[in-house]
Amino acid sequence: MKIEANDDYSRFSSAHFVGRLDLAHEAKSILQGKQNRELPGVIEEITSFAHGKVTSIEIFSELGARIMSKPKGKYITIDAPEIRSGRRYEAEISAITAKQIKALLPQKESTVLLIGLGNNRATPDALGPKVVQYTVATRHILQQDDALCNLAPLCTLAPGVLGITGIETAEIIKGVVQRIKPDVIIAVDALAAASVKRVSTTIQITDTGIQPGSGVGNKRLPITKETLGIPVIAIGVPTVVSSSVIIYETLLTLGKELKTESAAWEHIDDETFLHIEEELLETFEGNLIVTPKEIDRLIENIARIIAAAIAQAVHSGVNQHNYQLYIE
Amino acid sequence: MKIEANDDYSRFSSAHFVGRLDLAHEAKSILQGKQNRELPGVIEEITSFAHGKVTSIEIFSELGARIMSKPKGKYITIDAPEIRSGRRYEAEISAITAKQIKALLPQKESTVLLIGLGNNRATPDALGPKVVQYTVATRHILQQDDALCNLAPLCTLAPGVLGITGIETAEIIKGVVQRIKPDVIIAVDALAAASVKRVSTTIQITDTGIQPGSGVGNKRLPITKETLGIPVIAIGVPTVVSSSVIIYETLLTLGKELKTESAAWEHIDDETFLHIEEELLETFEGNLIVTPKEIDRLIENIARIIAAAIAQAVHSGVNQHNYQLYIE
Amino acid sequence: MKIEANDDYSRFSSAHFVGRLDLAHEAKSILQGKQNRELPGVIEEITSFAHGKVTSIEIFSELGARIMSKPKGKYITIDAPEIRSGRRYEAEISAITAKQIKALLPQKESTVLLIGLGNNRATPDALGPKVVQYTVATRHILQQDDALCNLAPLCTLAPGVLGITGIETAEIIKGVVQRIKPDVIIAVDALAAASVKRVSTTIQITDTGIQPGSGVGNKRLPITKETLGIPVIAIGVPTVVSSSVIIYETLLTLGKELKTESAAWEHIDDETFLHIEEELLETFEGNLIVTPKEIDRLIENIARIIAAAIAQAVHSGVNQHNYQLYIE
Amino acid sequence: MKIEANDDYSRFSSAHFVGRLDLAHEAKSILQGKQNRELPGVIEEITSFAHGKVTSIEIFSELGARIMSKPKGKYITIDAPEIRSGRRYEAEISAITAKQIKALLPQKESTVLLIGLGNNRATPDALGPKVVQYTVATRHILQQDDALCNLAPLCTLAPGVLGITGIETAEIIKGVVQRIKPDVIIAVDALAAASVKRVSTTIQITDTGIQPGSGVGNKRLPITKETLGIPVIAIGVPTVVSSSVIIYETLLTLGKELKTESAAWEHIDDETFLHIEEELLETFEGNLIVTPKEIDRLIENIARIIAAAIAQAVHSGVNQHNYQLYIE
Repeated sequence: MKIEANDDYSRFSSAHFVGRLDLAHEAKSILQGKQNRELPGVIEEITSFAHGKVTSIEIFSELGARIMSKPKGKYITIDAPEIRSGRRYEAEISAITAKQIKALLPQKESTVLLIGLGNNRATPDALGPKVVQYTVATRHILQQDDALCNLAPLCTLAPGVLGITGIETAEIIKGVVQRIKPDVIIAVDALAAASVKRVSTTIQITDTGIQPGSGVGNKRLPITKETLGIPVIAIGVPTVVSSSVIIYETLLTLGKELKTESAAWEHIDDETFLHIEEELLETFEGNLIVTPKEIDRLIENIARIIAAAIAQAVHSGVNQHNYQLYIE
Repeated sequence: MKIEANDDYSRFSSAHFVGRLDLAHEAKSILQGKQNRELPGVIEEITSFAHGKVTSIEIFSELGARIMSKPKGKYITIDAPEIRSGRRYEAEISAITAKQIKALLPQKESTVLLIGLGNNRATPDALGPKVVQYTVATRHILQQDDALCNLAPLCTLAPGVLGITGIETAEIIKGVVQRIKPDVIIAVDALAAASVKRVSTTIQITDTGIQPGSGVGNKRLPITKETLGIPVIAIGVPTVVSSSVIIYETLLTLGKELKTESAAWEHIDDETFLHIEEELLETFEGNLIVTPKEIDRLIENIARIIAAAIAQAVHSGVNQHNYQLYIE
Repeated sequence: MKIEANDDYSRFSSAHFVGRLDLAHEAKSILQGKQNRELPGVIEEITSFAHGKVTSIEIFSELGARIMSKPKGKYITIDAPEIRSGRRYEAEISAITAKQIKALLPQKESTVLLIGLGNNRATPDALGPKVVQYTVATRHILQQDDALCNLAPLCTLAPGVLGITGIETAEIIKGVVQRIKPDVIIAVDALAAASVKRVSTTIQITDTGIQPGSGVGNKRLPITKETLGIPVIAIGVPTVVSSSVIIYETLLTLGKELKTESAAWEHIDDETFLHIEEELLETFEGNLIVTPKEIDRLIENIARIIAAAIAQAVHSGVNQHNYQLYIE
Repeated sequence: MKIEANDDYSRFSSAHFVGRLDLAHEAKSILQGKQNRELPGVIEEITSFAHGKVTSIEIFSELGARIMSKPKGKYITIDAPEIRSGRRYEAEISAITAKQIKALLPQKESTVLLIGLGNNRATPDALGPKVVQYTVATRHILQQDDALCNLAPLCTLAPGVLGITGIETAEIIKGVVQRIKPDVIIAVDALAAASVKRVSTTIQITDTGIQPGSGVGNKRLPITKETLGIPVIAIGVPTVVSSSVIIYETLLTLGKELKTESAAWEHIDDETFLHIEEELLETFEGNLIVTPKEIDRLIENIARIIAAAIAQAVHSGVNQHNYQLYIE
């Protein structure tokens, strides 16, 4: 869903479609339409940095949550297209990201459990496990050596996915949380975007945890403060494009082509879209992944940046200049 | 492009579209349309086996080649949907495939160079390197031990892709062919299909080699008998779906939805399709991959079957009952 | 420690050395010496099969446990050198192994939690995670579909190692066990052997669980019935050779060379061995791995066999003829 | 072979032993003994840098070559133990290494073919392929875009090993060299050292190419200026310890333990060593790898440094401050 477009997006803004969007930022843009109308219960603030921008959305009322099809809470989106050009802006972007994560962490020194959600064997779903792989655990070292006083206790878990382990991911996490009693969870997951331009260039940070049904894999129980008893900061990055988007863009483009035949185009409404989508999902058996060709490389880039950001957010002794020594 | 459909496929049968189809079988179906009309210079023969069928297409005239946008030669397609259900029919399907490969190999004992085309790091393009990995090279052992008399000399090469090595793949192959002088090349490559149902379930075997521009990666010089001086048998398997197909299917489905508005639908012709495609490719930067979610697992299944088929085709001592001992 | 040797092994049979042996079979052989003397509290039974043998050792008294430096319980060793020759005897060896595992499992239908211990990133320590990877989890499918009545509920976990996660492996397991309440645990781990011939050809199955300090990695808390409240069947396979063994074999061989100089040789006793070992461990920083060159391939072979054996032991519907359909 | 030791190394300085040493530096130290005697036809120069030192050895006469069991030419050794502590000194060490490589490269702009020798599937032999993986090829981009004027044309090849491809590695390289006509080859390979301290901390650079029989794998034909017609710069890094070294160190340590029994110790000479080694190699089937436990991580560190050094040596536009943008 190109948010810059001039078409009337409200035409397709069915709750169905918006409800399936992982990024609050995209949901809001579509709901607002080109008239950029106000959404009740939702506020937004945008700031820029040298190679990108930060959009902070807060959903503060039940009405806002219902309209956005997302729980109340903060949704921070970092957009940095230069992530794709390799490691040139890694230090800058990870420092910006770290600042946003840190703002959501408990103030005092705390034990962090980093959870890498997703399936290590399927490239576009491997973001979470990759971030865990780049991260250096410190919890077991600190227990032995108090001298490393500028590192906080951090431990990691890549619990796998239900389809492979036969265990609900949320159950594994609950069990481990009960044993090791961390103060906060940071959960990293792959998302689906409405635009291919966002794949591996947008980072969403939220204090609302992981909701059922979002993401690429099958994560069915929520991983939230309500279910675990401790704050859950979720970091999500789009790695695939929702296949509905291609259908939607095809229809929009057709609309432009047929602009003189307005009579025909008027028949293409929400219902038509849902019918077409349903039929195509049947044709393609509902399990297609749409992703950029170079997704392997993109995931490496973004996983490094997120691991670098987490290290800077969690450890007071790690910063933009030395983080390279604290990621693997 | 679902060949069972009842729509008039001829509407979109532009040379542009057919020329981009990797599978001769799909090209022929679309060109024939639902009237199943004769194509000059092209003959087809279909046989069945327990869990699939074999379609042999021969393009025998220049006219046929021009219509099909493919060089003259044999194109054998093995369709076996059960490949997806795991290893249950591996022995059966690999034996059928072996028979087809063997029919294209030189009669007398010969040295085979197996080439695995594609990029090992990008899952859907990794089929060729995977087949090489499952295959046991014998050429160096035979030079030492004459007793293994039922194995033919087989060697393997996974030359990588231009974007990673900086060398045209065809140049690497030419150099190696000149040094080791094999009698025949078997080249395995990933293809794009017009239907997601074909991903990892269809095997195309041809004696026309690898043509420029086909496949998932960037292979730019042909790998053919003309360029290398020895027969080149190409084995291709679809691992992705051409993104044009989703656009095409969207339009077809829309057509069905709007069937009463025939006036509008009539404006959606070849030219409209090309316009829409061009614009969408720009939107998505022309480098999207559309592939089933479980592509990692599917590629493992099909790579095993092809490695098993090559072992049975090349070595007189390997058959449907003992092939497991000759693949890795 | 070649148990067929004619040298007097009792010379070096210090508790230190035997205590570090992972295989009960090797410990017993060394303790018995060439006189094959009786060990109190320990019984042994040997049976043969076509391509190997099964040695069942039971330590039934506290005295036996102290002498063997191992807890009371059953230790079954399967020796099958043909594992190295590839997949020729996979069906036979996995069926034999399955029978031994099954004898230790609870009689009635039960939920099994398979745990793959070790570090996926270090080849010789990756056996556990590899077995998990080859195993198909069924627990989540059975909850949905009662028709698959010949499969038992099996789930899997590869918890990683402390050095990477920052969490004691036993803590992760405890947490998950408390949540999902399996009836029995099967834990697979890499071991160190006293002979390179045993690497990937010997399988040890025991009902005593995993003890602290054994194995290749750093597993520090026990994973046993005492700590988890449910039976723990441990399956271990040597993937490395203890570096003490090379030192020991060097001294033994020197002894043979110097046999006429018996005066000198007599000075080389247990204490000398320990001194030399200590000094060499310092020289080599105590963290050397000694392993066969082809360890990557050997681990694949043995991981397949163990996954096949577990499938046959756990599911009444899986046997020697169809197991290939139930491993990945 | 700890070169700092006070023992009389000349006792074991058999040509057999020295001839098998991959590092000229180690060979020289052992041949010189603790008296540090002059070697005819061999000169050495040592310089230091902040976190290591550079030893340049030149063998300039046939006599020197015979004594050292190595061809005439330059052998530069960079010792930098801090490589193990991660990425802290990566910039410094790669810049020093780059300077040494550059001194051996042809002066004028030239096309470089980087060859990664070794087996990608066996961790300690995977150094060459890993360096290729971290290196960005530029030859194909330059052909399209003259603007990138500070990058030289670089292409890469990871030819695999004979045991897997069935083709002599040198044959593949010859074929490719004949087709693409590079000006110089840089070949990276894994070596065996006499000391575990050198594993992944010592880099040897030589203008004598790759000789038959050295390294971890089976590389049988030489890859040298004589066989290929263009200069071959070989970069080698120890990734394993020669298993003879453990035997040797065991005997030396025993010697110290038995120092009062000089009569016995005097019987342990070169011949004894060779007998013991031969017998142990038989015991261990001659194919043991001795390597540090964390070899996976060490190989990543050193492969990055070598890729960084090659980029800085080859491209005039790449330096210590921006190299991170030119490695993958």
